[in-house]
Amino acid sequence: MCAKRLGRQTLLLDNAPGVSASASVAGGKEGEGPLKRSFDFISDDARFGEKSWERSESALLKKCLALACGKAQLAPEELDLIISGDLLNQCAGSAYALRETGAPYLGLYGACSTMSEALNLGSILIDAGAAQNVAVLTGSHFCSAERQFRFPLEYGALRTPTSQWTVTGAGALILSAGGPGPYVTRVTTGRIVDMGVKDASNMGAAMAPAACDTLLAHFRETGRAPEDYDAVITGDLGLTGSAILAELLAAEGVALGARHMDCGSVIYDAKRQGVRSGGSGCGCSASVLAGYVLENMRSGLWRRVLFAATGALMSPTTSQQGESIPGICHAAALETEV
Amino acid sequence: MCAKRLGRQTLLLDNAPGVSASASVAGGKEGEGPLKRSFDFISDDARFGEKSWERSESALLKKCLALACGKAQLAPEELDLIISGDLLNQCAGSAYALRETGAPYLGLYGACSTMSEALNLGSILIDAGAAQNVAVLTGSHFCSAERQFRFPLEYGALRTPTSQWTVTGAGALILSAGGPGPYVTRVTTGRIVDMGVKDASNMGAAMAPAACDTLLAHFRETGRAPEDYDAVITGDLGLTGSAILAELLAAEGVALGARHMDCGSVIYDAKRQGVRSGGSGCGCSASVLAGYVLENMRSGLWRRVLFAATGALMSPTTSQQGESIPGICHAAALETEV
Repeated sequence: MCAKRLGRQTLLLDNAPGVSASASVAGGKEGEGPLKRSFDFISDDARFGEKSWERSESALLKKCLALACGKAQLAPEELDLIISGDLLNQCAGSAYALRETGAPYLGLYGACSTMSEALNLGSILIDAGAAQNVAVLTGSHFCSAERQFRFPLEYGALRTPTSQWTVTGAGALILSAGGPGPYVTRVTTGRIVDMGVKDASNMGAAMAPAACDTLLAHFRETGRAPEDYDAVITGDLGLTGSAILAELLAAEGVALGARHMDCGSVIYDAKRQGVRSGGSGCGCSASVLAGYVLENMRSGLWRRVLFAATGALMSPTTSQQGESIPGICHAAALETEV
Repeated sequence: MCAKRLGRQTLLLDNAPGVSASASVAGGKEGEGPLKRSFDFISDDARFGEKSWERSESALLKKCLALACGKAQLAPEELDLIISGDLLNQCAGSAYALRETGAPYLGLYGACSTMSEALNLGSILIDAGAAQNVAVLTGSHFCSAERQFRFPLEYGALRTPTSQWTVTGAGALILSAGGPGPYVTRVTTGRIVDMGVKDASNMGAAMAPAACDTLLAHFRETGRAPEDYDAVITGDLGLTGSAILAELLAAEGVALGARHMDCGSVIYDAKRQGVRSGGSGCGCSASVLAGYVLENMRSGLWRRVLFAATGALMSPTTSQQGESIPGICHAAALETEV
């Protein structure tokens, strides 16, 4: 046996894989936000040179993987495995971005939790010796998401105060056996949690209970407390969802305090950039992890973080049919030393 | 290290997980086909008691998991992990079917290769000691697929000779550390292969090159030949895709001969049931594996089979945009003895 089970949901990875390289790509709006210095590439062309928004989304994923592979000095065809997924119907963003890589491929669907799901899975597979170098990546594009999930852009639909803005961006990590670090040391697989929220313009509220469930499981099964982490990073709960998460955790006697950072809450200056409750989309937590978070770890500012991206697993069809929104959240501990 | 890498794509699983239980569910048309005796449950209600086709799809997945768990004498909440995915936008069929299980969940998108992707991943995780009992399942529903991928049922659209009929059905396997068998001994992860086929009514042709690529990788990396298997089972190439696969393999000097069985070609009596080139959909290979294939292994008819489901990774949007169809195929060796 390889993986050490700390509990039903959490594994301790003894052969902790390292993040040997990472890259983030962002669109213009994200490039004007507070994290602008952390992106490797900011496109001044929202179309990324393509004719359709779906192709643009594939292009930004492709660009991001190329940058990460360049930093790791590995060609895509040298990777043992690529794990990806996205929000587009049938995860077409990833499939079309990666069809020419020639690398073994596992497609995931975890909505905006995809970066966490891919990171956890890639880390487990390396820990188990099933692969040496694995690329995990995901992204999203405001324009492809808007027309698929909400309204045609041309409508100029108004947004509710709880709504979030889909990030145009992507993040890619190259995970490698033996490092260099930061290392992935403990991973917690989430459960689907549906508390009955039906408002598709309030994803933060739908996902917060899943974040709470997974964070509690992580703390319980690892015997760690929030204080053991320099930062506890959720994916894209936004301002609304982050407040709800704090309330839910408080009811369980857990306080994250100032060490909580939500990628959706920090990627934009919500007031100045008019994004209401913050950012969302697979590319939100992916680009913030691949850029800002890992930068803070490499600089020594943070030595241990818990990264927990959240996803809302509904579809436009289920929303139209009056269904509530199931959420999910996976978590991974990243540490500079093992 | 746990997993033994036989090559870039293939792992040897020393702690080979066993298929401790399996269940298959089918709709009426499938229940009138040649494999009717192999399904655990055949519904005489295409709606599975639900008001929408999407809910019907979730209901059939739920039913299938319940049957498999019943046979394994495990409650869903006792599972360490559930791995699932489907063809519906945002894989909503699986998320809504499984949201009440309370079990850790990994969502996949592999189109009609989902059963293979889930089977391989679940097996690797058990081999690595990351889980003891894992449910892998997937399904599809003719009516939800038809309106999402093709035309509203009410149009009564004509079908081309190469078209396939989406199976209403599901299959679930409970994988358990230590068995009992049949066991999963070798798994091969596929690469995305796109040979430029653009006809969404000819998925068999789009997927056959991926099947060829993965089967060749499996034989090459394991040092095995087709003759080492009692049956080499592809997912849903249908009659057209199966003929193309035979040609592609022949060009590489490989002949499967009579040991090739394609789930899409055997689940219906194509002429009598008017399904043109055969069956397709995640539920096709899943229900045939969970029923007919495992039955033949348990009865001793087959001792060693290679199961390789194929998926077409396009979406209706990419087809409308004139894109070709990327295919993928993953393969697993199932053996009665290890």
